[in-house]
Amino acid sequence: MRRQVLACRVENHSGVLTHITGLFASRGFNIDSLSVGETDNPRFSRVTIVCRGDERILEQIRKQLGKLIDVIKVINLSEMESVERELMLVRVNVGPSKRAEVMEIAEVFRAKVVDVGAKELMIEISGKRAKVDAFIDLMRPYGIKEMARTGEVALARGPKPSAAGG
Amino acid sequence: MRRQVLACRVENHSGVLTHITGLFASRGFNIDSLSVGETDNPRFSRVTIVCRGDERILEQIRKQLGKLIDVIKVINLSEMESVERELMLVRVNVGPSKRAEVMEIAEVFRAKVVDVGAKELMIEISGKRAKVDAFIDLMRPYGIKEMARTGEVALARGPKPSAAGG
Repeated sequence: MRRQVLACRVENHSGVLTHITGLFASRGFNIDSLSVGETDNPRFSRVTIVCRGDERILEQIRKQLGKLIDVIKVINLSEMESVERELMLVRVNVGPSKRAEVMEIAEVFRAKVVDVGAKELMIEISGKRAKVDAFIDLMRPYGIKEMARTGEVALARGPKPSAAGG
Repeated sequence: MRRQVLACRVENHSGVLTHITGLFASRGFNIDSLSVGETDNPRFSRVTIVCRGDERILEQIRKQLGKLIDVIKVINLSEMESVERELMLVRVNVGPSKRAEVMEIAEVFRAKVVDVGAKELMIEISGKRAKVDAFIDLMRPYGIKEMARTGEVALARGPKPSAAGG
């Protein structure tokens, strides 16, 4: 049950997300995270899906995704070298006495404090999934009030410069 | 046609995304961006939806979302003070001669170069939507090969510290 990352280029229509998620749901295949954002061309959106499950079934889903009329292209980024990133906003239970302590941890993670409340801090962090997970583990003892993760987006790495040209 | 940001706390089941996006699609209501990520409790996910359209219809959708069995809570973050952030990965067409130029712009935006290819750079940027849009505008003349935006996530700001307590 390897983690799989699929990226789809889709028509920016209402309904396309329902078709895509429906393919997963009809097989009881749970999606860990999904994110849909605009592309440079307003006609298209890019959907990134992270999921885990039987590889054979996922391969079937991938083929059927490619047959959907609104889906232009599907790439399995798990099969190539890629860069994956996500962003999280998190509200942590921190009163004035512990504020400096939490801000120090945030600094180590290059996370940013984006809001300060009477008894809480809101922190923005971005990076690889493992980094975000590690930060959550460190914040948990203080008390996490609420969090919002974007889910991962990913792009394949480009061809490397040759030693001579680099 | 104000931009609206809805945040839903949902059961982490296959099928729930299909139900949610189906409510929008059945009214021909297009979603600008959507992101689904895990929460601190593995039972639940958080879905953030950004859309634009007739406010009366959106209010109907919002009420129906609240009635879905897998949806625990719906908040309209456009009605309160909130922090909104997104992340983008972008591959820009940049050969060695223009690399320094593009890296300077990236630095101003506190964006990070995450991969260097023979004829391209991959850059990670996060922040408010307007900042990401401005960065795209600056990269466009070089040639954007591919981009992946997470779509926005948002959290409501907490109560502010009183002047005495702050």
